[in-house]
Amino acid sequence: MTSTEHHLDEAVDRALRGPARDRNPRVGCVLVDPAGQVVGAGHHAGAGSPHAEVAALASAGDLASGATAYVTLEPCNHHGRTGPCARALRDAGVVRVVYAVPDPTAQAGGGAAWLRAHGIPVERCAHPAAEALVSDWARARTLGRPHVTWKIASTLDGRVAAADGSSRWITSAEARQDAHRLRSRVDAVVVGTGTALADDPALTARTPDGAAAPVQPVRVVVGLRDLPPGARLGLGPDPALHLRTRDPHEVLAALTARGVHSVLLEGGPTLAGAFWRAGCVDEVLVYLAPALLGAGASAVPDLGVRTIDDCVRLELAEVRPVGPDLRLRLVPGRLAPSTPPGHPAVHALVPPVPSSEED
Amino acid sequence: MTSTEHHLDEAVDRALRGPARDRNPRVGCVLVDPAGQVVGAGHHAGAGSPHAEVAALASAGDLASGATAYVTLEPCNHHGRTGPCARALRDAGVVRVVYAVPDPTAQAGGGAAWLRAHGIPVERCAHPAAEALVSDWARARTLGRPHVTWKIASTLDGRVAAADGSSRWITSAEARQDAHRLRSRVDAVVVGTGTALADDPALTARTPDGAAAPVQPVRVVVGLRDLPPGARLGLGPDPALHLRTRDPHEVLAALTARGVHSVLLEGGPTLAGAFWRAGCVDEVLVYLAPALLGAGASAVPDLGVRTIDDCVRLELAEVRPVGPDLRLRLVPGRLAPSTPPGHPAVHALVPPVPSSEED
Repeated sequence: MTSTEHHLDEAVDRALRGPARDRNPRVGCVLVDPAGQVVGAGHHAGAGSPHAEVAALASAGDLASGATAYVTLEPCNHHGRTGPCARALRDAGVVRVVYAVPDPTAQAGGGAAWLRAHGIPVERCAHPAAEALVSDWARARTLGRPHVTWKIASTLDGRVAAADGSSRWITSAEARQDAHRLRSRVDAVVVGTGTALADDPALTARTPDGAAAPVQPVRVVVGLRDLPPGARLGLGPDPALHLRTRDPHEVLAALTARGVHSVLLEGGPTLAGAFWRAGCVDEVLVYLAPALLGAGASAVPDLGVRTIDDCVRLELAEVRPVGPDLRLRLVPGRLAPSTPPGHPAVHALVPPVPSSEED
Repeated sequence: MTSTEHHLDEAVDRALRGPARDRNPRVGCVLVDPAGQVVGAGHHAGAGSPHAEVAALASAGDLASGATAYVTLEPCNHHGRTGPCARALRDAGVVRVVYAVPDPTAQAGGGAAWLRAHGIPVERCAHPAAEALVSDWARARTLGRPHVTWKIASTLDGRVAAADGSSRWITSAEARQDAHRLRSRVDAVVVGTGTALADDPALTARTPDGAAAPVQPVRVVVGLRDLPPGARLGLGPDPALHLRTRDPHEVLAALTARGVHSVLLEGGPTLAGAFWRAGCVDEVLVYLAPALLGAGASAVPDLGVRTIDDCVRLELAEVRPVGPDLRLRLVPGRLAPSTPPGHPAVHALVPPVPSSEED
């Protein structure tokens, strides 16, 4: 391991002291003097608190002068609530900056360029653990909203329930456990009031033995209808958030304001169809049971596709066996040559990149 | 390579001189004297001709005495059109028999046991090329009818056509080429008159450049309606066989009588449903396009499943990417614990083993 990797590891360790779910990503910074001694360290404690670089400079005091800064994320160059970190590093006498992940936001980016323009050498060093700290946040920043995964658990013939409406269970215990692991990795799990009223789901992430997983997603129910008293989504220390709207953009804006960077759609075809038509589905995750029903509700709602040339084409990003089932991860593919440009069913997957406000 | 493998290779080479599609499998035999010299060789030239052992004995004449026989298939022990080969080998003075594949039919099997009971050492030596020669035939003998593969080319949501009926193409060029290779490997391709009238398919096996493949399946159309003059199934040197029935058992009996050991169902859901309900589907092959239609005809017809406990469970035997698509091969799985015994949708996949008549 090089000393650079070692100091970035230290910065990652510091970053992990920050909150797991926040509007901002976890960032860590260590300051190292020419002899290789760590003279300061800091992390970002959540939106509104000082950035990691500022915290590290404060802990180093005068010792920052002449030090190299190792930061998990490129120092910012904008005046948010905390002032630009690039300038703060320069003003404190830092002589070199090493960072792991470029800042993906045009608003805040440019810190590396600013430092170089002011005579301070800057080096980027890829670091997987540092990338993992910011990937959800970066993706959400790029999208201008949380990243949305549409989860489907269906038979080979695309059914999510039998003719009589029964659906427990289509997929195997292994696939359902995998889906629980997924819940504890996303920031929010969303269903519509239809699913909430029909199935009374808990939407908690559980371990294979049925216990609550250590990290739980924000549980969200979307729609205008009330849930009955005693509904499982209303129970627990953190009752589900009930967003009284049918507009996916409103849902995602409300979740963005709560620091949600990733969303798992677990509702039925109605909810998924609304997100799809609004251009708010970034990934489709299908748990495919090697089973046939021949009748019953379809996993995929009417998408407005009338003829084969308008068929929605995705790209298989990953195929993985999960117990007896298959898990397919699909992402927007290139347009089929015969698809007219601008067709909404496909464009829905490639929303424009808006700007964002949080710091 | 051992001398046994070498002589079985020679027997396989001889076998390949026989007809590729016949009621009987291709079988080859070589007779080798104690010095290792081949003193006789023969192959089976199709139903009604002498068995390979008899042909080899005839070519060896008196030199057969004292020789070892290498045969791709266990010598028969029954009086068909040709008399039992086990006895013929013994009578000719063969002192040892090596074979690759046991005869799966109770009627003809027992040749090895008969030889041993008459003091002649018999050895079985597994040989993949020899197994490949007889696998389709052996499977059909075990089933008492041709092995039936139900081919589906569908979207992720189980659709085979868009809302307006258009379906060219759901899957990629690579998947369609793979399906053409499959056609040239099965003995017969079957559609219903519905598909024949709607799509006017040729059902020939073609190479990627569009030329006819060297080996073509028997083309079969099933149903009571006439095809119009000029239908592509009526064209070519071997026009399609039109079986005027709706009964899958009648179809398979007619094909068995024509030496067909394997059938590919390429018709739509109506044909597949009839075969399914009749218990005549042994394998499901799905070309799955990573695409969504949200509406349109379903790949899988109503199978009589009303509730989730009766869901038809298959086992994924193979998953293979074919271009951008996936190819899934599925075979009957074990019954789900909650499935009542005797449920037809699953039992349909495990027919009883009947006896068979051909020689």
